[in-house]
Amino acid sequence: MAATIHAMPILDVTLMTGRSYEKKKTLIKELTDATVRALEVSPERVRVIVREIHPSHFAVAGEPKGEPE
Amino acid sequence: MAATIHAMPILDVTLMTGRSYEKKKTLIKELTDATVRALEVSPERVRVIVREIHPSHFAVAGEPKGEPE
Amino acid sequence: MAATIHAMPILDVTLMTGRSYEKKKTLIKELTDATVRALEVSPERVRVIVREIHPSHFAVAGEPKGEPE
Amino acid sequence: MAATIHAMPILDVTLMTGRSYEKKKTLIKELTDATVRALEVSPERVRVIVREIHPSHFAVAGEPKGEPE
Amino acid sequence: MAATIHAMPILDVTLMTGRSYEKKKTLIKELTDATVRALEVSPERVRVIVREIHPSHFAVAGEPKGEPE
Amino acid sequence: MAATIHAMPILDVTLMTGRSYEKKKTLIKELTDATVRALEVSPERVRVIVREIHPSHFAVAGEPKGEPE
Repeated sequence: MAATIHAMPILDVTLMTGRSYEKKKTLIKELTDATVRALEVSPERVRVIVREIHPSHFAVAGEPKGEPE
Repeated sequence: MAATIHAMPILDVTLMTGRSYEKKKTLIKELTDATVRALEVSPERVRVIVREIHPSHFAVAGEPKGEPE
Repeated sequence: MAATIHAMPILDVTLMTGRSYEKKKTLIKELTDATVRALEVSPERVRVIVREIHPSHFAVAGEPKGEPE
Repeated sequence: MAATIHAMPILDVTLMTGRSYEKKKTLIKELTDATVRALEVSPERVRVIVREIHPSHFAVAGEPKGEPE
Repeated sequence: MAATIHAMPILDVTLMTGRSYEKKKTLIKELTDATVRALEVSPERVRVIVREIHPSHFAVAGEPKGEPE
Repeated sequence: MAATIHAMPILDVTLMTGRSYEKKKTLIKELTDATVRALEVSPERVRVIVREIHPSHFAVAGEPKGEPE
């Protein structure tokens, strides 16, 4: 099916630093599985990129979420 | 727990055009649920952005996946 | 000053559709001025890109902010 | 007003490394204030992410802006 | 070689609208070839995404590069 | 020519860590040259940003490409 062949979703995840590798690995696996189920694509087509941001570089309402180390 | 308060993940999903709204809505819901489970954050903290790319603007091995309409 | 020469900030703004051009133009001007003031760079070095997302492609807590048209 | 409720702008700022935290904090605050003024949204809706790039990873005219450390 | 296996570069190209498909297709091919040569990866590993921005949504020095249509 | 004046392409390259600076410098130069040729723009208009991702933060089929250090 053409739509499936063309899927190739890229999940770009922006996350604050401070999560363990185990949690991030679980997140990657769960996001991939969710995409496979929802879009009916094969897992090999799904790419996940995790970009970590230090809390001093992430702000809501103009306030950074943390100080630099 | 500080780590949970600071989570605020942003999922930026790049997808080729051609999926139905129902499929994309399911994808958004599934990705959010996966993030809630994996990172133990409340759903309100999870944002999903879907950016659709026409197949003529997405290429593997130098070959676009489709022609412009 | 080297730091100033090297500044070249790129502001990538993700916004839901529905704003008038006048509002977006004002936003672009205000963001540029804010960057010039805060980083002490010349305006010519500041680039702003606005990427609009339809509410059906933007979700909080797993719920898209609107239906497709 | 629906347009205001749906605003939720995300400002993704790419900046070369070398700025003090104080300057970046001022930038974040100024960008948020500019967005609040221009789009008439509440500050709580505005998110700013700062992504720093080393000068060796940023190039104009094919020339990186610095050497690796 | 592990480094080659792990390459998988993603080229995310932001371009103003107004280019012909032929030009964009050439760009995609040339960027892919350049990556293959420079990183010694197989073409199948290189993905190119083109994201077009209308001139009214792209600004230098606070001035959008065009008016909306 | 208006189209050329308005070009200003930004190439955002996501790459796994582990490449030498020489390879990345060559990549930046080659990508810039490719863009100049394909779009007929002057080199000064082309910006390249390299964002490196650790293999533990990049996954295909739900499997990260490496362990954290």
